[in-house]
Amino acid sequence: MESELLAWIRDRLPPHPQLRLGPGDDAAVLRLADGAECAVTVDLLTDGVDFRIGEVAPGRVGRKALAVSISDIAAMAARPLAAVIALALPRRGGKQLAIGLYEGLIPLAEKYDMSIAGGDINSWDGPLAISTTVIGQITARGPLCRHGARPGDRIVVTGQFGGSILGRHLDFDPRVDEALWLTENYDLRAGIDVSDGLSLDLSRLAAESGCGAVIDLALVPVADAARELSRQQGATEAELDSAALEHALSDGEDFELILAVAPEDAAQMIADQPLSITLTDIGQFIDQHGLWQIDADGRRCPLEAKGYLH
Amino acid sequence: MESELLAWIRDRLPPHPQLRLGPGDDAAVLRLADGAECAVTVDLLTDGVDFRIGEVAPGRVGRKALAVSISDIAAMAARPLAAVIALALPRRGGKQLAIGLYEGLIPLAEKYDMSIAGGDINSWDGPLAISTTVIGQITARGPLCRHGARPGDRIVVTGQFGGSILGRHLDFDPRVDEALWLTENYDLRAGIDVSDGLSLDLSRLAAESGCGAVIDLALVPVADAARELSRQQGATEAELDSAALEHALSDGEDFELILAVAPEDAAQMIADQPLSITLTDIGQFIDQHGLWQIDADGRRCPLEAKGYLH
Repeated sequence: MESELLAWIRDRLPPHPQLRLGPGDDAAVLRLADGAECAVTVDLLTDGVDFRIGEVAPGRVGRKALAVSISDIAAMAARPLAAVIALALPRRGGKQLAIGLYEGLIPLAEKYDMSIAGGDINSWDGPLAISTTVIGQITARGPLCRHGARPGDRIVVTGQFGGSILGRHLDFDPRVDEALWLTENYDLRAGIDVSDGLSLDLSRLAAESGCGAVIDLALVPVADAARELSRQQGATEAELDSAALEHALSDGEDFELILAVAPEDAAQMIADQPLSITLTDIGQFIDQHGLWQIDADGRRCPLEAKGYLH
Repeated sequence: MESELLAWIRDRLPPHPQLRLGPGDDAAVLRLADGAECAVTVDLLTDGVDFRIGEVAPGRVGRKALAVSISDIAAMAARPLAAVIALALPRRGGKQLAIGLYEGLIPLAEKYDMSIAGGDINSWDGPLAISTTVIGQITARGPLCRHGARPGDRIVVTGQFGGSILGRHLDFDPRVDEALWLTENYDLRAGIDVSDGLSLDLSRLAAESGCGAVIDLALVPVADAARELSRQQGATEAELDSAALEHALSDGEDFELILAVAPEDAAQMIADQPLSITLTDIGQFIDQHGLWQIDADGRRCPLEAKGYLH
């Protein structure tokens, strides 16, 4: 539903002179009256969808809520500056729950030298809902947008993919420092964070850039958790690689970055491996629209963009 | 609950060099790297608390959600620039509901020349929840804060109070232009918008300013809706004035402004009546902490701060 609604909303909203980048990217970019720019993003996480409050400590939930929005700021290669947090708390035990949430999110804010600038606290008869808005500072390199990838650019990803539901979806580290370092040192053309699925989010970046993308499936960095999840779901050893790859392509909530990188810079980046997490070149952007795969036999064929639809 | 939790949160959060004004005012004020400042506020409105989705058109709900946050920016005498909106939609009919919400809030954004910069759309098994974050531009006069009232300052309010539940809580106009005009032309010392109740919000402003406040009850501008609501609740003609006054002092969701104004400027402002809505001087700030009333016999005695507690 989100994509149709987003299209409707984008059609309805007029351009605004102070809105440099509007709905449809990881964050909006606003120009203030004096020319300063900031990035803004919001997420609304809900019990039963993004977490199950009975099964996980409130601190991990609060941390996740903030981390998800920080990840959007990281995807813009911006620096998170401040967050405002709004809570809809169940009436029973709401105060202790709120304290738990804050005890999880405050250390994360401190880690990124962000302030918790304000918030709104409410009780209601519904389950827990947490809204996090994060404001980021655009660096001198400008925002890293979803548009900007060009045919020939390489697809470079941080980290590993798949199986985040086993725990990483709660405890991941948003790639703030990584994005800031990479944008400072290489020619990044476009970027997105993987919230809904590697293949789905890559297809979104390609579509916004007006090009297509082809993934070499053999190169996709598959997380151990994707294999573990496949095992738990009954995959045999023979099926394991293929099942884990499927998770890597479509699970979502990896909160790794997909970057479009100029080819020569991508080669250098992969050779340098300048981060504590692995950078992997998994394919390239191409003229032909859509999402494509190079399979084990070296053939190019369509790849379905799969992931979480809100 | 909100006040205790807010106190806990304010204690826990360290100061931050780029946070000029943190939790506890109508909006936070952030300083960006290049010295630009912006105001940020968030509200999370929920079905059954802030509206009843079965009883009111979605457009009015969307409009209210945005207006509530705009009102916080107005209370800072800042100019609303952009909003980001996050929705948690019930699974059944969610898309049509979202469209209705946006059809109500877009015209309000246009009225104030704001952009809808982005958002987040989710479905879940819970009722409708709407998070609105509004970013405002601080004017050259600086932000109008809750602290800053001094003993001797007059208490000036816009509009009338009470009975907003009869409809005004949905359809009110946030006092953006009024606040901008007044701060430009008079010496405003402090301000707050009345979301939870005239007496409660006044007591908050006084407390943040480190002083007390005394209201002359005979001067409180009581809305016709407060009388109408009192009638509906069975007040006799003899009880009507007193019942309506009680509503005016404690109902909340008036979204009018309470301003602390330098005495000579307050007198001028009341004489000028420069706005299309009435400005009323209802009392003054005093040294003695707490909230006080001057009753019909001219005696000063304590006044209970009443209103909506979240």
